[in-house]
Amino acid sequence: MTKKPLILVTNDDGITAPGIRKLIAIMNTIGDVVVIAPDSPQSGMGHAITIDSTLTCNKIKVDDGNQIEYKCSGTPADCVKMAISEILDRKPDLCVSGINHGSNSSINVIYSGTMSAAVEAGIEGVPAIGFSLLDYSWNANFDVLEDEIKIITQNVLKNGLPEGVVLNVNFPKLEKFKGIKICRQAKGNWKETFDKRVNPIGKEYYWLSGEFVNLDKGEDTDEWALANDYVSVVPIQFDLTAHHFIQKLNNWEL
Amino acid sequence: MTKKPLILVTNDDGITAPGIRKLIAIMNTIGDVVVIAPDSPQSGMGHAITIDSTLTCNKIKVDDGNQIEYKCSGTPADCVKMAISEILDRKPDLCVSGINHGSNSSINVIYSGTMSAAVEAGIEGVPAIGFSLLDYSWNANFDVLEDEIKIITQNVLKNGLPEGVVLNVNFPKLEKFKGIKICRQAKGNWKETFDKRVNPIGKEYYWLSGEFVNLDKGEDTDEWALANDYVSVVPIQFDLTAHHFIQKLNNWEL
Repeated sequence: MTKKPLILVTNDDGITAPGIRKLIAIMNTIGDVVVIAPDSPQSGMGHAITIDSTLTCNKIKVDDGNQIEYKCSGTPADCVKMAISEILDRKPDLCVSGINHGSNSSINVIYSGTMSAAVEAGIEGVPAIGFSLLDYSWNANFDVLEDEIKIITQNVLKNGLPEGVVLNVNFPKLEKFKGIKICRQAKGNWKETFDKRVNPIGKEYYWLSGEFVNLDKGEDTDEWALANDYVSVVPIQFDLTAHHFIQKLNNWEL
Repeated sequence: MTKKPLILVTNDDGITAPGIRKLIAIMNTIGDVVVIAPDSPQSGMGHAITIDSTLTCNKIKVDDGNQIEYKCSGTPADCVKMAISEILDRKPDLCVSGINHGSNSSINVIYSGTMSAAVEAGIEGVPAIGFSLLDYSWNANFDVLEDEIKIITQNVLKNGLPEGVVLNVNFPKLEKFKGIKICRQAKGNWKETFDKRVNPIGKEYYWLSGEFVNLDKGEDTDEWALANDYVSVVPIQFDLTAHHFIQKLNNWEL
């Protein structure tokens, strides 16, 4: 009998979010599951870590299933550090993060707590995948993602991932997908609008708001795949060096 | 007479930190300076943005000089969004972030609020540089960095930066440098230790702590440059796609 893989599950929407509950249920069919996830929503936390305050991490049981679960007061990146350095007695074979309620395609990968957890696992040498659904609602339909999540997860367990690479998987909001497409990150950004208001004692404050703008029409991008009913898979790296610009920089008068 | 460049200054240590005060003083000799920086320390915030709560942004005067200044309740990335979308009446010619009290070399770029501000500016199409000194102390000697900061800044203003690239500049803790070296990001990670304690009512909590481990002996890395008394300049990109792995991924059975 083959030994079951040890799978670490985390997210950024918090341990009770329907997205992570579905991901745990799927992972329970594949391996031994340990969940270490934030005790409250951490969306938009990017790769934040907690260095100026304390952390708590406590065992809980949220629902049925064979998983072992801990809720952690920190960010998604904290959860992964806590899991690997403190809670787990061996390095996990895989870390999966999500399923995020909302898109992490294109530039959103930068702001994403979901993806920061996957990246943190990658930094620690653990193969990792972030899963996100292009539906922000709490009651999004995560059931239809099951087959694709299993296929991608099994492939990562079988093939491994190269050092320094994790996967960013996004699902369009659909009942059925045309297939799974390997993509590059589309160029895009947010056109911000700051909604300026006045509080009851007359002081101004703002809500950050905005609209994503896709600046990239390439058919090899995640935005194209998602707009055309495909599941997008982007391999992501955390060596941020812009290698193509090094030679030119060497010609500057520095 | 040539028009002076408009320079946005921000950081992650907060608007009163000696590092940003020095950077403002240097930039005042180069252009018209607007400061929009966090009202409290934001170290380790990575690329976090504020989407679940409100933001404030208020004009202040911290010290003498021609700069116009605002303190913002948000993260470094929030400050840059606020500056470009709400406060400034034209796109700045340059954004500089720092001078950070502490290193942002190697993998630290991922956790860095200083660099997230520079990256956010880059996303918005503004040439950007993050400056960091390998000295965490509040009273670090920032004066000795002046010449190199001016040279690098003038070069960016003169040559521009390609779309999608910002600079990560780190200074060793020295009185004098051997020179400025163009580098790639060294492979490295943190070996975390969680310092477990018990609070006065008997509940366990943790402090995240750890030690940086350089896994890369390459003489073309930022770690090598800094250990050998050079100022390191790493061009950083925010297209995170691991392009080298796309072909192989296409051979998976997905």
